[in-house]
Amino acid sequence: MSDGASDKTSLTFSSKVRLPRLSVDQYVQGVRENNRTILAQAITLVESNSPFHMEMAQEVIKKLLAHTGNAIRIGITGVPGVGKSTFIEAFGTMLCEKGHRVAVLAVDPSSTVTRGSILGDKTRMELLSRNPHAFIRPSATGGTLGGVNRKTRETMLICEAAGYDVILIETVGVGQSETTVRSMVDFFLLLMLTGAGDELQGIKKGVIEIADALLINKADGENRTRALIAKGEYNRALHYLQPATVGWETKAYMCSALTGEGIEEIWNVVNVFREKTTQTGGFEARRSAQSLDWMYSMANDYLRTMFFSHPQIALLLPQMEGAVTSGQLSPTSAVQQLVTIFESAISKKE
Amino acid sequence: MSDGASDKTSLTFSSKVRLPRLSVDQYVQGVRENNRTILAQAITLVESNSPFHMEMAQEVIKKLLAHTGNAIRIGITGVPGVGKSTFIEAFGTMLCEKGHRVAVLAVDPSSTVTRGSILGDKTRMELLSRNPHAFIRPSATGGTLGGVNRKTRETMLICEAAGYDVILIETVGVGQSETTVRSMVDFFLLLMLTGAGDELQGIKKGVIEIADALLINKADGENRTRALIAKGEYNRALHYLQPATVGWETKAYMCSALTGEGIEEIWNVVNVFREKTTQTGGFEARRSAQSLDWMYSMANDYLRTMFFSHPQIALLLPQMEGAVTSGQLSPTSAVQQLVTIFESAISKKE
Repeated sequence: MSDGASDKTSLTFSSKVRLPRLSVDQYVQGVRENNRTILAQAITLVESNSPFHMEMAQEVIKKLLAHTGNAIRIGITGVPGVGKSTFIEAFGTMLCEKGHRVAVLAVDPSSTVTRGSILGDKTRMELLSRNPHAFIRPSATGGTLGGVNRKTRETMLICEAAGYDVILIETVGVGQSETTVRSMVDFFLLLMLTGAGDELQGIKKGVIEIADALLINKADGENRTRALIAKGEYNRALHYLQPATVGWETKAYMCSALTGEGIEEIWNVVNVFREKTTQTGGFEARRSAQSLDWMYSMANDYLRTMFFSHPQIALLLPQMEGAVTSGQLSPTSAVQQLVTIFESAISKKE
Repeated sequence: MSDGASDKTSLTFSSKVRLPRLSVDQYVQGVRENNRTILAQAITLVESNSPFHMEMAQEVIKKLLAHTGNAIRIGITGVPGVGKSTFIEAFGTMLCEKGHRVAVLAVDPSSTVTRGSILGDKTRMELLSRNPHAFIRPSATGGTLGGVNRKTRETMLICEAAGYDVILIETVGVGQSETTVRSMVDFFLLLMLTGAGDELQGIKKGVIEIADALLINKADGENRTRALIAKGEYNRALHYLQPATVGWETKAYMCSALTGEGIEEIWNVVNVFREKTTQTGGFEARRSAQSLDWMYSMANDYLRTMFFSHPQIALLLPQMEGAVTSGQLSPTSAVQQLVTIFESAISKKE
């Protein structure tokens, strides 16, 4: 990047995202050396919504791509109060002790609006955040879930290029965030509490079906017996569902971040999963499919924005919606009218 | 429609879809009078892919819209061999005897390719097809599931305008057809067989979750005891899933088209469902949401076709896909390139 380009940045965007004037190669080198300051700045670059930063971020990612993909990507979800932070703290610390390097990311669409619950990651995971082998990044904010989706995926790639070999992506489960996280990870873990029937009320439809393991947390003290019963109940229920991953049986496990029970076991489960699906080719097939799906999903986002943000469409849409829901207009006619307007508008553009 | 326009049709499309030269008003009147010949022709008009027919069909639907929406729309699915035809024959005949007028439609995306299994509806449901209060229409063929979707929805509207007050939409469950049918009906019925665990293998992921009732068919003779056991097992499994319809508990029932047991009961279930959801407002809310979703889904289909069928995009896409799946190109970069090409192409159009 030329100085001129950097000047442009500092003039136009410095008030929004503060970044040093590093070149693409400086970012790439810093990330590859796991320079934590530059790593954090590279992620800030990826998270920036400025067109200049976005373009530079793509240059950086392009050069890092060859060094990505070597981590195991694990998604973690569960209702608030299930103990995600304490689990990740215990799980991540155990992994660091085993010699792994662990990056913790978060997908939290709520944080855009509420400055939400995962923003304070570093204080929630005090022990892990001080561990030199762990890297915790609060969730990206700003924009739609689509934007958060892109930022998290690219942050994951950057962490992989920096040598982190276990990526944990946490979500609070707002909106479509579980599906979003599932679409970017190899293994999806659903944390649960005891008392199957009731607790399930808080778990959204379809979330159990996309999980590779159910993990009953807080299985300690008096709760342990109840956790055992819940585990059996969940396993019976899982018998009726098709597994999230072909060739893998989703089962229920239990753990306690307090006593440490089950923390290593779930890591073993992840490893067996990785081995099995690597042998069948399912592991790589899923990743290829995820990349393609993501490409198509971004293209569709672009198309929808182009169409529905078009001034003439945006102006007409509310009354079209009204006419369709009240049964005065067939959806087919509505779309025909919108398309006619759109096509005449873009053909007049030049 | 002027004679000139009709001439254009017969010249351009007569070899493909044969239709008499009726005016929009003649179609509307014929449908409203339940003239079965004109009703069938109006549906053929809706199913035609010719632009002229499509435009005329929209005129017809527009004039019929005020007379639609009074039927209960029931989707029926189940794996091949579960006995959908015999169930629909028994269920439809019972409804006709009660004074209802029953239209049977089908969504079968496979029939496009294989001249598939639902094409022979009339011979499969011999008794019902001869009943003057029933109208059976083989599944629409030609084109994508999106096309079949539109055709079936509009055929349903035409049948409602002709006075049919129960619409049964059957699907063989190929591809995404269950979700498609769910998106156009009020009540979704999943036919099953005894022997829960094993039979479930044939039922696609997520289908149980969108059903408002599970109906174990062929619960007769020696099978009756096994059906009772299966019913209990399904009900326990359903306890772990959130119901497809807010405020409604999805349960398992059993029936036999042979003995007639349970056929009236499932109609009672549908009626209780309709009453309950009408009281809560959920019935109308779902229909409004369905119309809007359909509008947006058609708009998205249009946008995807416009983009991905664009010659320059279509030419480049295979190598983009290859680069993305092999990890040489990030999905974001790929989309950026495609969008740049597309925008420059449409701005040069004039």
